[in-house]
Amino acid sequence: MSIRIGILGYGNLGRGVECAVKQNADMELAAVFTRRSPQELSILTKTAAVCSVNEIMEWKDKIDVLILCGGSATDLPEQSPKMASAFHIVDSFDTHAKIPEHFANVDAAAKEGGKTAIISIGWDPGMFSLSRMYANAILPDGKDYTFWGKGVSQGHSDAIRRIKGVKNAKQYTIPVEEALEAVRNGENPELTVRQKHIRECFVVLEDEEDAARVEEEIKTMPNYFADYDTIVHFISEEELLREHSGIPHGGFVLRSGKTGWDNENNHLIEYSLKLDSNPEFTSNVIVAYARAAYRLAAQGATGCKTAFDIPPAYLSAKSGEELRAELL
Amino acid sequence: MSIRIGILGYGNLGRGVECAVKQNADMELAAVFTRRSPQELSILTKTAAVCSVNEIMEWKDKIDVLILCGGSATDLPEQSPKMASAFHIVDSFDTHAKIPEHFANVDAAAKEGGKTAIISIGWDPGMFSLSRMYANAILPDGKDYTFWGKGVSQGHSDAIRRIKGVKNAKQYTIPVEEALEAVRNGENPELTVRQKHIRECFVVLEDEEDAARVEEEIKTMPNYFADYDTIVHFISEEELLREHSGIPHGGFVLRSGKTGWDNENNHLIEYSLKLDSNPEFTSNVIVAYARAAYRLAAQGATGCKTAFDIPPAYLSAKSGEELRAELL
Repeated sequence: MSIRIGILGYGNLGRGVECAVKQNADMELAAVFTRRSPQELSILTKTAAVCSVNEIMEWKDKIDVLILCGGSATDLPEQSPKMASAFHIVDSFDTHAKIPEHFANVDAAAKEGGKTAIISIGWDPGMFSLSRMYANAILPDGKDYTFWGKGVSQGHSDAIRRIKGVKNAKQYTIPVEEALEAVRNGENPELTVRQKHIRECFVVLEDEEDAARVEEEIKTMPNYFADYDTIVHFISEEELLREHSGIPHGGFVLRSGKTGWDNENNHLIEYSLKLDSNPEFTSNVIVAYARAAYRLAAQGATGCKTAFDIPPAYLSAKSGEELRAELL
Repeated sequence: MSIRIGILGYGNLGRGVECAVKQNADMELAAVFTRRSPQELSILTKTAAVCSVNEIMEWKDKIDVLILCGGSATDLPEQSPKMASAFHIVDSFDTHAKIPEHFANVDAAAKEGGKTAIISIGWDPGMFSLSRMYANAILPDGKDYTFWGKGVSQGHSDAIRRIKGVKNAKQYTIPVEEALEAVRNGENPELTVRQKHIRECFVVLEDEEDAARVEEEIKTMPNYFADYDTIVHFISEEELLREHSGIPHGGFVLRSGKTGWDNENNHLIEYSLKLDSNPEFTSNVIVAYARAAYRLAAQGATGCKTAFDIPPAYLSAKSGEELRAELL
């Protein structure tokens, strides 16, 4: 019997989850729930229903795990607790500073409803968090580094698009190679934000005469760009759409640490991702954790969990015997 | 209250575990058990006992987790089941092909004794296995690669030392950079053993006239060297001891996979280790899993587990709240 998946929200992430479900033979997509009019929404999976979010509670017995594909700013803080009282859920809540609060809200709702909820799944938080946690447990005496990119930052691209006179824009976050090498060489550098990442911007102007002003506004924008070395290219909208319409991302998690009676030996643990599609990779991680949610629920587990709480084997379609024989 | 650790076997691994325990404030070394005469063994931890292995059963109530530091060829197949019936244990059994058999033997003994056993802990098997497993669960449509090195292979060094006329030797396994790059570029290459690793040997001869014969014997040795590009250097014993007495190791686990409705997007997951001391890093992993064994035992878990079965958070001295706030 397949694990019946529901998707709430059909943007880039929702479509990614739909593709990920197709790759996993033990799952099927049951329904996509949208705030739009269902008649206006066309999905890829011909066997799945498209429904209004207003009907979602009628699906309580027809869905095993509901995957929330909304945004962390406004959607998930409201949706995750609400849905966790009625469904086993997985979300990708990624506002690091607010995770403890989100965890508490979802935990209370899931416990009240007798459901399993897994939050903050993806690659950061998610696989990067796991890498940091394992590496910290293994090397208690050490130092952590996380670098992001090369990849598109949606938040920084949006910030540029809000500048007067900007028609369109895309911003890439790029790790500084020298900083990465210093970490890999065991130098344990103290790095400023400027020393860790470069910001490269491709900008389409409404009017070319605004170039100097727009460049200045970008480079001096507090929080987003002022603390970084920022490169600004002005290009045509045609070039932007042709060369910069992908949403690649990735990054590096490193921990450098010491062992030995007198701390005489150095070790480096490095985990990295190079992703053509940020939302599709995130979706594949989420779908593996949907399998874990299904299994935890079958054991009667209730309440909120994160990647730290889930036995790795729960993510895999393979049996314990297969995993030990093939991958251990 | 500290977790009381026992060590069985005091070679490189046992000493590494002793150093690792010192780094973890929630643990203390209670005793080291040796097959040698205890009077002949001097350890680093002044507060710990040194005992004959024959007395080990008297320590059943004075040790929380026993760490087995013997070899996989002959020690662990016998010791792990025997000890698992009386102690919560962790071992580093690393003969991949025999893991299913070892698991079954330890599982039966641990269940009979009501104990928790965790086997095959270290970096391969261990952290590399976890990387393979997570990456396979996330990217079901993909291809795995494992490269080892640069590092010292004890087995290959021993094989050279068994050749007539060889006084001493050290063998380094080195990954082929071009092969690694091809994998990183998403080329999904089919690689022969020769294309993946180079074997570099540093050899001290009894008599320099044997050089040509010894080099030929090394390069044509079946299984160990014949299928590889092998480089042989003859050096003085002085140089060998000065330049090649470390036991560094490391390696790379990669999975290249596809997502998207028509498999149109590529992704690369890479995990790598660069280790000054193979046994000390292995020891640090083992000690983190000793914490997990202690916690599982406190919950009443019995039987054999591997890294695949253990929630990541069990490895860390931090609380769930701390982990979510600091590392998620």
